[in-house]
Amino acid sequence: MPRAAAKDGTRRNAKWEARRAAIVDTSARLFAAQGYHATGLTELCDANDLGKGALYHYIGSKEELLAAIHDRVMDEVLQGADRVAEAGGTPPEQLAMLGAELLDVIHRYPDHVWVFLHEFPALTGERAAQFRTRRRAYEQRVEAVLRAGVEAGDFRDIDPWLTARAWLGMHNYTYLWLKPGQRLSARDVAQPFADIFLKGIEASPSRTR
Amino acid sequence: MPRAAAKDGTRRNAKWEARRAAIVDTSARLFAAQGYHATGLTELCDANDLGKGALYHYIGSKEELLAAIHDRVMDEVLQGADRVAEAGGTPPEQLAMLGAELLDVIHRYPDHVWVFLHEFPALTGERAAQFRTRRRAYEQRVEAVLRAGVEAGDFRDIDPWLTARAWLGMHNYTYLWLKPGQRLSARDVAQPFADIFLKGIEASPSRTR
Repeated sequence: MPRAAAKDGTRRNAKWEARRAAIVDTSARLFAAQGYHATGLTELCDANDLGKGALYHYIGSKEELLAAIHDRVMDEVLQGADRVAEAGGTPPEQLAMLGAELLDVIHRYPDHVWVFLHEFPALTGERAAQFRTRRRAYEQRVEAVLRAGVEAGDFRDIDPWLTARAWLGMHNYTYLWLKPGQRLSARDVAQPFADIFLKGIEASPSRTR
Repeated sequence: MPRAAAKDGTRRNAKWEARRAAIVDTSARLFAAQGYHATGLTELCDANDLGKGALYHYIGSKEELLAAIHDRVMDEVLQGADRVAEAGGTPPEQLAMLGAELLDVIHRYPDHVWVFLHEFPALTGERAAQFRTRRRAYEQRVEAVLRAGVEAGDFRDIDPWLTARAWLGMHNYTYLWLKPGQRLSARDVAQPFADIFLKGIEASPSRTR
């Protein structure tokens, strides 16, 4: 449940949820284009064709909107990680699938991801804490796959924390150029990236099982 | 020469340059902590212990200040790339040295790099064009080393553009955790990162020279 749904105890219906999701999407576009701090409430109202009271009814506050954009990205990223865990396979297969899922989110949500990576410091208090917790949960999924690969002898003796940072940077940073309608799809990028990373950390032939 | 030096034709001395550099550094800290748009001219004056007229004398405008922060990063990054080119060596050696130089800049200028990576969309007109030109020049240095490595048979048949993006993301994204006083130095990170990347793109043994 989005957190705003329970805010005033009102029961929200599917129509309300859909309108709220559309507001989040439109606002992500605006924040990505001109920055969170530079975007005023009046602009948000205009872009969403709502008065301030109506915007509040759906969102509550500008920071609530920012949190909802972050949640949209984290929901997708964590669902992708769940699919990978359910699919099973070796650690190298798991890591390649995690990469494909992550690039797919970045490709499908260019505005949300832009806002996510640029504006997370604007989240405060409980919202900042929740964001950090969920981001950390995802990072730990990546680290766990790397650790499992070292233990299974698939990967050489790498530092899972540091190697996860290399992997995350390589994939997350694609948000600058991996966009709908451009030359490359998420799939075009996922395979070469997995090739580089898996060859980069694989155990040397003499040490494999 | 920093562009402001020629602005009003006044001859600037070393003391003026040093004061201007200190203002750029202090302002980078402020922008990194709270965002470029959220930081007002009054705060900049307070942090630098200057009146608005004096700040203008050194900087000209808030966007000029943002451009100066970007220039500081690009100057360092391009000088590092020059040192690597002068040092010579094989393409794998060149790529490892480029990585060490880049991580060193990120580690030494955490605030400037944060502002660089978060606020570049706030640059407009000529300043935005100059920033893009210099950033592109650096990217092309990386692509050229990758291309040279493929031609020399050191690297497998990778796409230099896409592989440069993987390399840049992996290195640039360290700005989130590679900071002075933290557990890891730039040197601690440079070697494992070079290992991952070079193994990831090296030509298979049967195809090397």
